[in-house]
Parts: sequence; C-alpha cells; structure tokens
Amino acid sequence: MTNAKPIQLRGQPIAAGKLPLVCLPLVAGTEDALLAEAKQVLAKKPDVIEWRADFFEQVGKVDAVLACARHLRQMTGVTPMLFTCRSASQGGQPIELSSPQVAALCEAVCAARSIELIDFEMDNALEDVQRVVASARGTEVTVVLSHHDFDATPRFDELARRFRMAQDLGADVAKLAVMPSSLDDVLALLNATFHASRLLAIPVVGMAMGQVGSVSRLIGWMFGSAMTFAVGSRSSAPGQIAVDDLNAAIASLRRACGG
Amino acid sequence: MTNAKPIQLRGQPIAAGKLPLVCLPLVAGTEDALLAEAKQVLAKKPDVIEWRADFFEQVGKVDAVLACARHLRQMTGVTPMLFTCRSASQGGQPIELSSPQVAALCEAVCAARSIELIDFEMDNALEDVQRVVASARGTEVTVVLSHHDFDATPRFDELARRFRMAQDLGADVAKLAVMPSSLDDVLALLNATFHASRLLAIPVVGMAMGQVGSVSRLIGWMFGSAMTFAVGSRSSAPGQIAVDDLNAAIASLRRACGG
Repeated sequence: MTNAKPIQLRGQPIAAGKLPLVCLPLVAGTEDALLAEAKQVLAKKPDVIEWRADFFEQVGKVDAVLACARHLRQMTGVTPMLFTCRSASQGGQPIELSSPQVAALCEAVCAARSIELIDFEMDNALEDVQRVVASARGTEVTVVLSHHDFDATPRFDELARRFRMAQDLGADVAKLAVMPSSLDDVLALLNATFHASRLLAIPVVGMAMGQVGSVSRLIGWMFGSAMTFAVGSRSSAPGQIAVDDLNAAIASLRRACGG
Repeated sequence: MTNAKPIQLRGQPIAAGKLPLVCLPLVAGTEDALLAEAKQVLAKKPDVIEWRADFFEQVGKVDAVLACARHLRQMTGVTPMLFTCRSASQGGQPIELSSPQVAALCEAVCAARSIELIDFEMDNALEDVQRVVASARGTEVTVVLSHHDFDATPRFDELARRFRMAQDLGADVAKLAVMPSSLDDVLALLNATFHASRLLAIPVVGMAMGQVGSVSRLIGWMFGSAMTFAVGSRSSAPGQIAVDDLNAAIASLRRACGG
C-alpha cells in the first residue's frame, strides 16, 4: 500500500517500521510545564516526541536546554525524542539565537545524547548544516533536514529539488511542509512526496499545512511520507489534528484500503 | 471542505445534500435473488441503490426488466434507484443487447418511472445518448453520463475533456472511473475531478479503481466527487470497499479534518 521508507535510529526502524510514525510536539515554555506536557502527551502513546525548543524560555542558555533535555529523556523512556529549534522565518517562535548559535545548540544537544533525532533547516548556511550533520553522525542521532514554506506551495520541480537537497546535504530524513492555497497544492505536495519516496535513498516526510492541507496529515503515508505530526497537548503548526482523531482516521483508512 | 455539487432529483438534492452520497450496487442474476440482495443492501442504509442490470439474466426481455424494476421499487421505498446496464467493454457483464437496444431499454425503464437515476455511457452513438437523455428529461429521471477505462488512467487533459463531454451531451451528472497503475494516476484522477467540480455546472463523480485506487473512494468527495460506490452485498467493480468500512473511514476523515 505504501512506498514510505521507515525512519531509522542506529540502523533500526523506529516503532518496528510502523507507517506512518505519529509525532507529537511539546511546546511548553518552562521545564516544569514541559515535564507536565510530556506526561500528558506520552499517555497518547506517540511513536516520536518532538521538543520544540524555540518555545522554551531558556533556549538561549545551553545548560538549561541540556538539563531540560536530560529530564525529559528520563520521562520519555523508550519513546525517541526529536529536538527542533524552528526559526521564526519557518514558523517557529521568535528567539534571540542566530543561525550559528542554533547550530551550536544542536551540536551540544547531540553530544549530550539526550535525544534521538534532530531537526535542522536546510536553508541555514552550508557550514552550519554540515556542523549539525557531522555532530549527529558522530553521536548516532538521526538528522532530519527540513524546509517549511508558510506562504505558499512551490511547484513540483521545486519541491522535488528540496527533497533531493536534504539528501545531498547528508540528511537521514528529508522533511517538507508547505502552505496550500487550494487542494491543487495538496495534490502537488502528495505528488512530490510520492516521487521523492521512490527516488531518494532516505525516508521523506511531506505535509501540507492549514485546514486545507489537513487531509495530507492523514493520507501522506500512502504517498510515501514516513511520519505525521499531530496534537497531543497543544498544536505546533497550523492544520495539525488531535492525535486520537488522527489515529482513528488512519486506522479506518488502513482497514478500508486493506493497507 | 468540499467543492462537490450535490446530485439532484427533480430539483432537490438527494439525501439533503449529503456528501458524498454512498451508492450500493445490486448484482444478482434473478428477480428473487435481486429482491433478497436489495433487502440485505437496504439494511446498510445507502443513499442510492444501483441496479446493475447487465448482471440480470433476463436483461434481454424488456417486460421482465420492467417488472423487476417495479418490484425492486416497492422494496427500496424512498431510496433512489440508479439503473445501469454497463457494457462489457466498460467492465459490465457480456450481454446480447446492442447499444441501440440498451438505449431502448433505458428509455422503457425511464418511461415506467420505477427508477430515479439512469447511467448511460457517453461513448455510445450520439443518437443513442440523445435518446436516453431526452427520455430521462421527459420523465424527470436524473441522467449520469459515464465513462470507464479499465486499462489505464488517461492524462489530465483527456480526463477533463471526458467530464466536459458529459455536460455537453446533457448529463445531470458526469462520471469517470479509471484504472490506475500507480498512485500518480490516483492523484491525476483526483486532480481532474477537482477541476471539473469547479468548472462544470453539474455534479461530477470520479474514482480510481482497483486496490491502488481504493483511497479515491474514501477521499474523492474532498476533491469534488459527489458519490462513491461501495459494497453492500457483492462488489460491482474492482477496489470497492465494504460499506461499513467506507462509512467509518469517511466519518473519521470528516471528524479529523473538521469537514
């Protein structure tokens, strides 16, 4: 039914190769609130937990980030954690760190081995991308190189180029999120995701955001997208679906399509 | 959420405009078996019942067809019935009637007013299409002009031309079913359906058949397709989904997407 390649961790597919993986974000601003949020989110049994560190009030203090990551790690147990410090230009919270500082933070988080996956935007300076990729390689962290377009959905060729670019930069996972203005754009995103899932050697994650795009979060796996992001506690991007509704919809699609 | 136009009956949307309408086929070979099948299928509460008359052993006897339609009508009550005598070249059973004879049968069935909708293939001779359309107009039967490609999925332009052709020929509903060889074809069918649903004045129905296409039967309504065909008792085309699974999947998609 699906062409999606499973996302791996140290050579092993996460959640025994389940497709799609369901990732739930943590978006609280303080460590206490994050630990409370993690408890709530873990009850939803996500395959991956994403810590959106750009929401963390102390994101500018490396020690505070590392301590929080360690404490989250103690709570998440076997559930892999994805560390993401999204830039404001790609939908993140405004923070004071420069791109090289975010890269340095990512390096430090990899080195501390409190996380299993790391997201870094492929638009960053090449040397920053290379630093993060090298750091992740050396610490067996899975690297997601991502791009988010909150304004529009690029044409097929540009979407394909972006997926390819992530692989060429050394990603373990290529992730694209776009904003559709109509269902045509949603079909274009699915089309590009499907093509990339066949052409590339690495797993891909593709989604169309917003209300118009929300169907892509449910059916993207059929078109090769290895992971989908849903709401456990609070949403981290427009169009995310409550995880219970998402799980129910995917299960019934799977039953209906025999996939 | 959807651009689908509702299918109407004498100026009123069927099932109060529910989208998508769920149509369940009857494919038994004898009147007794059809009545038993109708009872079983009606328990599934379809929005429309389709009598696939090409499966009827006595399809060559107009009187037998009219009597059976009348008896089915008594049983189906308020559920509208779609009469279809599919040709073998478009996925139907091999029967001995010529295309003009099928057109004459359709005329007789319209005249008897035991059905609410009639399907006729737009590939038939123009004079046969015109006869059936005129007969349906005169008896307030809703005309579905259809085309089925069991070998392949035509390109977007050809799909768009087909939808348009149905409208130009006087259809109340334009229906296309294609056989995808991959998910690219499924996306092409959804794309063409979505475009036709915006461009045409009449409702459209689009589906990709087979296992690969089955997802289109679940999500087509989001892309403008007004009706989906499922299995109540026995399947009438490849890739049809059991109606309980289909209803559950559509309900959970609707809940998840807020549609």
